[in-house]
Amino acid sequence: MQLQLMTWPDVQAYLGRRTDIIIPIGSTEQHGPTGLVGTDALTAEAVARGLGEAVGAIVGPTLSVGMAHHHLAFTGTITLRPTTLIALVKDVVASLRRHGFRQVLFVNGHGGNIATVNVAFQELYAEASLAGEGAGVRCALVNWWDGSRVPALCREFYAGQDGSHATASEIAVTWALFPETAREGTAHEPPVAPSGKGWTDAGEYRRNYPDGRIGSNPGLATIEQGGRLLAAAVEDMAEKHAAFLKAGE
Amino acid sequence: MQLQLMTWPDVQAYLGRRTDIIIPIGSTEQHGPTGLVGTDALTAEAVARGLGEAVGAIVGPTLSVGMAHHHLAFTGTITLRPTTLIALVKDVVASLRRHGFRQVLFVNGHGGNIATVNVAFQELYAEASLAGEGAGVRCALVNWWDGSRVPALCREFYAGQDGSHATASEIAVTWALFPETAREGTAHEPPVAPSGKGWTDAGEYRRNYPDGRIGSNPGLATIEQGGRLLAAAVEDMAEKHAAFLKAGE
Amino acid sequence: MQLQLMTWPDVQAYLGRRTDIIIPIGSTEQHGPTGLVGTDALTAEAVARGLGEAVGAIVGPTLSVGMAHHHLAFTGTITLRPTTLIALVKDVVASLRRHGFRQVLFVNGHGGNIATVNVAFQELYAEASLAGEGAGVRCALVNWWDGSRVPALCREFYAGQDGSHATASEIAVTWALFPETAREGTAHEPPVAPSGKGWTDAGEYRRNYPDGRIGSNPGLATIEQGGRLLAAAVEDMAEKHAAFLKAGE
Amino acid sequence: MQLQLMTWPDVQAYLGRRTDIIIPIGSTEQHGPTGLVGTDALTAEAVARGLGEAVGAIVGPTLSVGMAHHHLAFTGTITLRPTTLIALVKDVVASLRRHGFRQVLFVNGHGGNIATVNVAFQELYAEASLAGEGAGVRCALVNWWDGSRVPALCREFYAGQDGSHATASEIAVTWALFPETAREGTAHEPPVAPSGKGWTDAGEYRRNYPDGRIGSNPGLATIEQGGRLLAAAVEDMAEKHAAFLKAGE
Amino acid sequence: MQLQLMTWPDVQAYLGRRTDIIIPIGSTEQHGPTGLVGTDALTAEAVARGLGEAVGAIVGPTLSVGMAHHHLAFTGTITLRPTTLIALVKDVVASLRRHGFRQVLFVNGHGGNIATVNVAFQELYAEASLAGEGAGVRCALVNWWDGSRVPALCREFYAGQDGSHATASEIAVTWALFPETAREGTAHEPPVAPSGKGWTDAGEYRRNYPDGRIGSNPGLATIEQGGRLLAAAVEDMAEKHAAFLKAGE
Amino acid sequence: MQLQLMTWPDVQAYLGRRTDIIIPIGSTEQHGPTGLVGTDALTAEAVARGLGEAVGAIVGPTLSVGMAHHHLAFTGTITLRPTTLIALVKDVVASLRRHGFRQVLFVNGHGGNIATVNVAFQELYAEASLAGEGAGVRCALVNWWDGSRVPALCREFYAGQDGSHATASEIAVTWALFPETAREGTAHEPPVAPSGKGWTDAGEYRRNYPDGRIGSNPGLATIEQGGRLLAAAVEDMAEKHAAFLKAGE
Repeated sequence: MQLQLMTWPDVQAYLGRRTDIIIPIGSTEQHGPTGLVGTDALTAEAVARGLGEAVGAIVGPTLSVGMAHHHLAFTGTITLRPTTLIALVKDVVASLRRHGFRQVLFVNGHGGNIATVNVAFQELYAEASLAGEGAGVRCALVNWWDGSRVPALCREFYAGQDGSHATASEIAVTWALFPETAREGTAHEPPVAPSGKGWTDAGEYRRNYPDGRIGSNPGLATIEQGGRLLAAAVEDMAEKHAAFLKAGE
Repeated sequence: MQLQLMTWPDVQAYLGRRTDIIIPIGSTEQHGPTGLVGTDALTAEAVARGLGEAVGAIVGPTLSVGMAHHHLAFTGTITLRPTTLIALVKDVVASLRRHGFRQVLFVNGHGGNIATVNVAFQELYAEASLAGEGAGVRCALVNWWDGSRVPALCREFYAGQDGSHATASEIAVTWALFPETAREGTAHEPPVAPSGKGWTDAGEYRRNYPDGRIGSNPGLATIEQGGRLLAAAVEDMAEKHAAFLKAGE
Repeated sequence: MQLQLMTWPDVQAYLGRRTDIIIPIGSTEQHGPTGLVGTDALTAEAVARGLGEAVGAIVGPTLSVGMAHHHLAFTGTITLRPTTLIALVKDVVASLRRHGFRQVLFVNGHGGNIATVNVAFQELYAEASLAGEGAGVRCALVNWWDGSRVPALCREFYAGQDGSHATASEIAVTWALFPETAREGTAHEPPVAPSGKGWTDAGEYRRNYPDGRIGSNPGLATIEQGGRLLAAAVEDMAEKHAAFLKAGE
Repeated sequence: MQLQLMTWPDVQAYLGRRTDIIIPIGSTEQHGPTGLVGTDALTAEAVARGLGEAVGAIVGPTLSVGMAHHHLAFTGTITLRPTTLIALVKDVVASLRRHGFRQVLFVNGHGGNIATVNVAFQELYAEASLAGEGAGVRCALVNWWDGSRVPALCREFYAGQDGSHATASEIAVTWALFPETAREGTAHEPPVAPSGKGWTDAGEYRRNYPDGRIGSNPGLATIEQGGRLLAAAVEDMAEKHAAFLKAGE
Repeated sequence: MQLQLMTWPDVQAYLGRRTDIIIPIGSTEQHGPTGLVGTDALTAEAVARGLGEAVGAIVGPTLSVGMAHHHLAFTGTITLRPTTLIALVKDVVASLRRHGFRQVLFVNGHGGNIATVNVAFQELYAEASLAGEGAGVRCALVNWWDGSRVPALCREFYAGQDGSHATASEIAVTWALFPETAREGTAHEPPVAPSGKGWTDAGEYRRNYPDGRIGSNPGLATIEQGGRLLAAAVEDMAEKHAAFLKAGE
Repeated sequence: MQLQLMTWPDVQAYLGRRTDIIIPIGSTEQHGPTGLVGTDALTAEAVARGLGEAVGAIVGPTLSVGMAHHHLAFTGTITLRPTTLIALVKDVVASLRRHGFRQVLFVNGHGGNIATVNVAFQELYAEASLAGEGAGVRCALVNWWDGSRVPALCREFYAGQDGSHATASEIAVTWALFPETAREGTAHEPPVAPSGKGWTDAGEYRRNYPDGRIGSNPGLATIEQGGRLLAAAVEDMAEKHAAFLKAGE
């Protein structure tokens, strides 16, 4: 169930039965020479919608722009300042809380969002704590690759060449979703991107990772893997979703 | 061309040829008993993508949550505070400017966004003016219904019953996009919603407009109309796009 | 009745009878070679005070600095960032609301303020909507030239040469108010300023409009016209004021 | 010379000769049973304009709303939050700096503004210091009663009954400016208001000072005194102005 | 009693008896060629702890970084923007208020903090005033050198050469606290630093005060004086503390 | 070397040799019935100072108040809102950067600070990335318990009863630092605190963890363990410090 495809009486009826909602959050940023700029938003959206179907929960609109300043030296990247993203997430959750949603699960597609989104939750909770009131809502962020099944498939498919940015696995998922964008078997140079160096600003990131990838070999990605990874991610997330609902009982 | 489905070298190549980009912006808010919560984002996205194809321009990610506090008394509505939306739009434009985009056209699906998004442009320009620098980018917002063709079709289809919120025309467009959500011919009570009263907060809006609609009769909407409206909107927007590019010459 | 010339018991007595107030808002910005920097504040103040007398309402202090960054390339212009003006208007309205004022009408003298001031109202309302509370106050902005009488006089006096910045009409009003500043019949070069181009930052504005005027011929302005325009504006605003009070019933 | 009554070429010519400007800043707040709500703005404006004439300097628009939350329990008071006033003053000074003004003197009519306006100056300077740049402008705030002549007259006129809010002297000045508002000889109860207690919020202020006055006996004020006080204040301020210009040499 | 060395049940028990707390606030900034960067924090902390012992009050954690941008041209200085310090102080006080602390006394070691910290109090109070609520807490700032005993000792020890930054007296106190840092009798050139000039940004401060001192002769400072000054400051502050508690009765 | 005990010429000389600095950051919050409110600041400060001595680096002032709203239902806790802490950390780092510090390592004593402090770094970097500039400084946060030696000792001393808040180990360290506060062998009920439940606001935290502890048995802590843990933490941090400096080469 997508919130965007429901009417308000539909949503009201849902809230008579249960009070959880799923929000996909991604990023719009470079993903190497063959990965899509929208990878993190597209994957998060697809996994979140699969999860929504699997557990019968509403899935809200995708927040497609995240905290990605370090990719700005690659054309096409769009970022929010962390404080902007905090304000955005706060307002979204405050809106949902007003309606009676009590559990808001963000399904995330971008590592760079994690700290900021969690801080947004704390900013909202802190207002309640300082006022001596209850927060009225419980939030959590889960990354779609953070279960048991997806990492197992990654080991099977990529044997240590999945990497940590512009990963073979996330690129495979986008190709499964948008086969017309697939560039299976494209050779990269070097095949496995460098890794292990940190960064501060966008310029330093690019100096360390000249084509944008970190530790990945997207040349290994296939559409077929993408389909299996997506299904596995949905199963993984269903476990996380159940744990999230249970945590607040 | 969707930014999300391009690689960063694709975007860089594009910027070698031209420097304009289209950003769809909508809202997530009630649209009456039969309209979709995502109407404003879904329509803006579809029109923007059609426009992108028509004029060969990149279309960025859809900003699906807008300034919609006055709809919060209807379940499912999500809003940003105006100042949050200002920060969001500023960061998006500042990111694009860094890459060399020089004309950013927001295709808008929600009247409630207009003032705030325009103020965001001014906030960005004001920083440049106070610093004695050039803004480096030109922005504009156009509503997808603000051409000549769409209003003409609305008069033909709805004869004064299109209304101003949860309009027959926007609902028709969403039904054309998502036929499985269509509720053609559903009777509303009253058929034409009331209109003419202002509002301040969400509670007052609901008191004035009990089912969420303003002045509209969505019972007149059909999938077939939606398709024609969408095509007309793309043509209208292509004219606006040309005028926008010309304005900065 | 000017708020500034009343005592607090006077204001309290007034609130026992009615709950509306008028706030003049203008700008401090260039108005071409012969127009006063304070034009927008002086005209708004004069019209607002005339309106206050006509309808028996309190007129608050004039907010003389507005959103005028695009005029900064001309000496003497002062601007607020839009977000500063939003904060300012919010605090003013919140103060008035605390006393029991329920209708706050801003009489505006500067087109550049319109979007920002309206966004300020929405920021205030949005806080109420997110909290599930009533806004407690209704606000509106009207431009003093937005009635029927003033445009009619402009057509009569200037025959299409009134323009849109440093207009003959607003300059005439200031000369009526401050005859010692009048420069009747001063020739401009060209007599009618250019128009039709947009702008982003202050530098671009000045490149497009080298002496600051847009489309106007202030050489047509006279003190006598100014007096008639002022009287007409007060009558126009009285109609707007009545409509504003009626809107909230 | 009032900035508001000059054209931009006038201001530009002035900047060819000298680079100082005077900004009146006041407040809109209760001044006891007989004092005007606008007292602090009206007095600051009058003194600033007198000063401007005396020293040949431009006087900018009056900032009529200040930091006055503690008076909000008396009807008619309008306040800015301190952080709003900081933003306002920063933008005003940044605008002036862009034109080449190098000395900005705020002539103040309200004790409650002092700390906040000075902090605004520091906020602007701190940005420069953190960036390793020069501030580009020197600011100062002077209270119109802070010379030698005004206190001497107050001792002569009021013999210890001038007080510290709704003072006899400031009320006398407003009556000299607006004789139609004068209530000479009105008895107060008690004649001399209480003093000596601090306050936090507006409610506490009113509990301590039930009619709004602190330590004053406005029953002693006369129009004639007001004229002499105003003249003395202008002379006092001319000394402050000279010292301010000299400080930056 | 230091808050940091208590358990929460200890604090709760204290609040059953009394509701005041002391917060030391200082700065981290240059103090001339021989003064410690931490002078303002170390002295405020020592005086506050002495005061806490003298009057049996809890002393909270030291806020060691203040508003010191004007010292940034000297290595080691750390500053907060004024608006950051306002937010910091507001949150600290709001936290204490939630527990039932009703009198918060800041013992200050840096003149540059005074305006900003007082504005922070007003920001908190203004929120209450605008909401029509009580502030719930009373705050004050006292400088440790602002009693009668410390100035008397300074006159005795330094005969007009104490100065106003990197003062002989504050340096003496730090040497008493950290004798291993003492540089008694170090000659300065000139022995008494210049004074009397204002400043805006850090660069101007350094041009006016090349070694960082203002008007002081730290060559006169001794460890022995420091001990006497510290004791005197504690006695002075005990008077201020009593007056502060009395002010709110 | 403590920054607070150095003069500015000392700091300048240091920067001629190396450009790293250590900043201790903690929290002021409840630590169960026997733990000190200042535990997180006191431990971070002690470890940071030990690290500074071990590696010859400057240690800045301790930031003693952190992000601790969830402990506000226990008396004595002080929190900053996350956005306040972000502003604070940004200003501290920006100040240090201006002097030429290029590596800033925060030694942290409170888990609740981690996300927020890291977001503050990103906020600073994002400004640089959006401006197309270099960040000019590299920052990292390390928790003092995050090496290899401290966890090993915890296993040896507490065999799974160290817990995650008000841990036996952190309490032991504070007792080693302040033996007069030690309450060795105090029985808790239950001896091992509950664990495993999340929380949102302070009220929920207290309902889940009634005496403030999570999973810990502070009854096992001793002064002697504290000394060994502190020494181990310094050794662990020296490894982290070396890795941090190496990461930016």
